[in-house]
Amino acid sequence: MQTARTTPSRLAKRAHYDAATIHPILDEALFCVVSYSIDGQPMAIPTAFARKDDKLYIHGSVGSHFIRSIEQGNPVCISVMLTDGLVLAKSAFHHSVNYRSVTIFANAQKVTDETERLEALALITDHLIPGRWDDLRPTTASEMRKTTVLVFSLAEASAKVRAGGPNDEPEDEDLPTWAGVIPMQTVRLAPAPAENSLKTPLPTYLS
Amino acid sequence: MQTARTTPSRLAKRAHYDAATIHPILDEALFCVVSYSIDGQPMAIPTAFARKDDKLYIHGSVGSHFIRSIEQGNPVCISVMLTDGLVLAKSAFHHSVNYRSVTIFANAQKVTDETERLEALALITDHLIPGRWDDLRPTTASEMRKTTVLVFSLAEASAKVRAGGPNDEPEDEDLPTWAGVIPMQTVRLAPAPAENSLKTPLPTYLS
Repeated sequence: MQTARTTPSRLAKRAHYDAATIHPILDEALFCVVSYSIDGQPMAIPTAFARKDDKLYIHGSVGSHFIRSIEQGNPVCISVMLTDGLVLAKSAFHHSVNYRSVTIFANAQKVTDETERLEALALITDHLIPGRWDDLRPTTASEMRKTTVLVFSLAEASAKVRAGGPNDEPEDEDLPTWAGVIPMQTVRLAPAPAENSLKTPLPTYLS
Repeated sequence: MQTARTTPSRLAKRAHYDAATIHPILDEALFCVVSYSIDGQPMAIPTAFARKDDKLYIHGSVGSHFIRSIEQGNPVCISVMLTDGLVLAKSAFHHSVNYRSVTIFANAQKVTDETERLEALALITDHLIPGRWDDLRPTTASEMRKTTVLVFSLAEASAKVRAGGPNDEPEDEDLPTWAGVIPMQTVRLAPAPAENSLKTPLPTYLS
């Protein structure tokens, strides 16, 4: 949703407010940075998350300073960025980055319904490793008691996207410097078993 | 440096305060998230940066709301995270992430010395693309006028590092579920030339 604080001061043409742009970025990115403020002092914590419909879930230890600082609903800013490439222009000034980012202004709500709490943990687990949750033993009551689940509305989310090649000054076009894009990608390498799984076959959802 | 706000509330054994741990993380990561606060409202912006000694530089447009909000020296929190792997335990509860992160509490100082400003831009450019700066035409006076360079002290920086396999409960060790680590890596793919560089040989620093 476009509001004063979701409207960028620079390059507003790169801003998007539609779920069709925002949701795929949140689904591809594995981590976000949650920023909050204590008496004017900004704090920021990277964490895993998951999206469902127009809600974003995170979880943490009930004893975490971070979780306890935001669970009462004071404002947070959630930042997600995917880096698609480095953009090399003929001039330093026009170097850029191809990225897809999402910024969310929201207030945490503590999830209290046990079914929704479990579902959120399943979503976060399967966001990192699709198919994992159903392969795991049930979560115990004690584990659930140690875990806080928070939910945020995506109502005030916005995306910023840059794609494509460099935008050089007309007078720079003929310089002999190479210009273009170096694509970047995050890849998963071959799974390495733990000591307790040396003889366990790799599940199909990991291969 | 260990201070009250750089001491994590959870897993303090993962915290590090030495340059030998902090500097390599800052040198490997290409982007940081800068969080700041306006009247209690947290804001966060992902941006490129570079480290030199115990200082971190960022740059931006003189007109950017972000830059103008922090250049007077109000407190910021800078977050950097490298993701090394997903840690799959026998239980959902013990799933984790191998990461190396740095959190910096600092206040921006506007760099005014023209030599230091230019050096900072060279550092930021070469941090993204080592060797690039010397291949570029000189930055113009007009480009420099449009650019603000900010510097932050690393005095109150801390790192958090998790490495290794899952830590399972003793009673879970024999479960038939596969446990281990899925390593993750960010890779650069083959450079794609812009229209204006189709006939330009790829420089050695890119190959």
